[in-house]
Amino acid sequence: MKLRSLREKDIIAALKKEFADSDRGLILGIGDDAALVRGRASRLFLTTDLLIEGIHFLTALHPPYELGRKALYVNLSDIAAMGGTPRYALLGLGLKADLGRSWAEKFFEGFKAAAKESGTCLVGGDISASKKVVISVTVMGEGKRAVKRSGARPGDLIFVSGSLGDAAAGLRLLRRGLGKQKDDRAQALIQAFLDPKPPLSLGPLLARRRLATSMIDTSDGLSIDLAHLCEESQTGAEVYVEKLPLSEAIRVFETRPLALALHGGEDYQLLFTVSPRNLPSLANLQKRFPLHWIGRMTSTRSIWIMDKKGRRSPLLPKGYQHFARGPKIAYRSLPSSEKLCAQAK
Amino acid sequence: MKLRSLREKDIIAALKKEFADSDRGLILGIGDDAALVRGRASRLFLTTDLLIEGIHFLTALHPPYELGRKALYVNLSDIAAMGGTPRYALLGLGLKADLGRSWAEKFFEGFKAAAKESGTCLVGGDISASKKVVISVTVMGEGKRAVKRSGARPGDLIFVSGSLGDAAAGLRLLRRGLGKQKDDRAQALIQAFLDPKPPLSLGPLLARRRLATSMIDTSDGLSIDLAHLCEESQTGAEVYVEKLPLSEAIRVFETRPLALALHGGEDYQLLFTVSPRNLPSLANLQKRFPLHWIGRMTSTRSIWIMDKKGRRSPLLPKGYQHFARGPKIAYRSLPSSEKLCAQAK
Repeated sequence: MKLRSLREKDIIAALKKEFADSDRGLILGIGDDAALVRGRASRLFLTTDLLIEGIHFLTALHPPYELGRKALYVNLSDIAAMGGTPRYALLGLGLKADLGRSWAEKFFEGFKAAAKESGTCLVGGDISASKKVVISVTVMGEGKRAVKRSGARPGDLIFVSGSLGDAAAGLRLLRRGLGKQKDDRAQALIQAFLDPKPPLSLGPLLARRRLATSMIDTSDGLSIDLAHLCEESQTGAEVYVEKLPLSEAIRVFETRPLALALHGGEDYQLLFTVSPRNLPSLANLQKRFPLHWIGRMTSTRSIWIMDKKGRRSPLLPKGYQHFARGPKIAYRSLPSSEKLCAQAK
Repeated sequence: MKLRSLREKDIIAALKKEFADSDRGLILGIGDDAALVRGRASRLFLTTDLLIEGIHFLTALHPPYELGRKALYVNLSDIAAMGGTPRYALLGLGLKADLGRSWAEKFFEGFKAAAKESGTCLVGGDISASKKVVISVTVMGEGKRAVKRSGARPGDLIFVSGSLGDAAAGLRLLRRGLGKQKDDRAQALIQAFLDPKPPLSLGPLLARRRLATSMIDTSDGLSIDLAHLCEESQTGAEVYVEKLPLSEAIRVFETRPLALALHGGEDYQLLFTVSPRNLPSLANLQKRFPLHWIGRMTSTRSIWIMDKKGRRSPLLPKGYQHFARGPKIAYRSLPSSEKLCAQAK
């Protein structure tokens, strides 16, 4: 997409043209005071994420095309984690003039590609100047059934939809200046961080078929996200260390991949629980999605990590908490990764 | 509202408690991956606004309580300008640690008061650390009919719902260090800027009764907002200078109030057009709302300001365009106000 300038007016005119989607529920898109859409489903899903340069991403590490994609996908992941299907997006964008037109063009191209892939329609937004890039995305989704964080019962099995720790490992490669490595496995890790691909269609399937009793996406890292499920469901959990899905790539590039799998964030996989009686139905889905059984919900209210020999140690939530740590600039998955890095040495 | 700390977890816990509204359409509010609401009306209205410290507001001038209110109201104004009634809000907030807990508490109190007054339910959001305060609000509204910017026809009469220029005059008082003035009229101007009260119920009435042919809110200033209506409706307009509603306060504190009325932004009044045959129906509304007739749409495609003697001069859009001007930090309504200030000297 081409921009004539970074004036708000020119950007909106370009977006209006580029995002003139023919969504049948869309009555009025970009360009008026508000967008107008038809509400079709009985349940509407609403989610928003704020990404701030220097806190959630660094423009030096994150190319604009991939950032545009990720800004939308992190929200789509939230909708999927509730069992919804995304429909409409709004984009608030604070643009830094010194990044120039080309940066903005690539950002919008990435956003557009992600919208197209996911069937999401950009219907409105707000463009502004800013000293730091600020990205605010809101997504409305639809669906007949929703899966909350609070529905797990003791005895339910814990599943995750893909390998864990890859995004954190990719970030570590980038931080070490290894972004240009030609090794395919290194690139896979880096892409997991820069351009995550959450399993968007899995969430609604698990909801519609009533298979998941609770669900969340792994944005903060397994140890934190599982703690959320346990807290909301008033359960504890056991995680089996040898069951954690580790990619071949993370085994090659990390000496302590397990720590990243437990505490590294931004994988945007689905973490969900299934009642044992629904395992046969889940087996059908396993043909289409790589579903990994990693543990079990318990009635004790504590969360344990178990090794092969049955020895257990507490799994403490170790992801990132804003304001909770010392450094003034905190890069989302950095604190945990850096701590792990230190442990690994 | 009280916060235990500025940790995201503590803020969300406090918000969950404070904003536990019993809205009948709300299925699941703050605290999960996405909010869940019931879609009731046939048309959903979606709008978002991004407010960045140093660009759209200054914490030194804007008390947190009023900023919290205004952050919601500028979005509610957009919903009203389409004829919708607000229902649900999402709040993305980048908080600066050095402002402290009390600042955040007051901000949320203001946001809550505005939500309560307007019947809007906060259903979700995202809290983050930030070097500058960043506020992103998204509102979903509902309604059976919508009024676009594009429906005006030549001959339609132009109305505005309240006095113009007050917010810009209030900002000018604040910038001159006159915020503490005891004069009630000065305080009215300052409040118009800090804590605007858009006529939220007027928009849906105009839509439902099919009275407005086009509508927008005066966020950027009359000259820009009217230009939007004309551009979208493919008309021109004449504005009668002696008809512009000026408050007593602006006449007292500004030597050239007209310039602020034409180009000062952030009044958040409704600017709309009415077909002459609907004037009798509009008269009923005039008992409840101060509606000011200020001009007429024309077929010529140019916009004129007419004086008492029938002399006309072009009304050029002079509000603020991001990136379009020199200064690196642009405070939303400042450029036009400052230019006017310079003209007034």
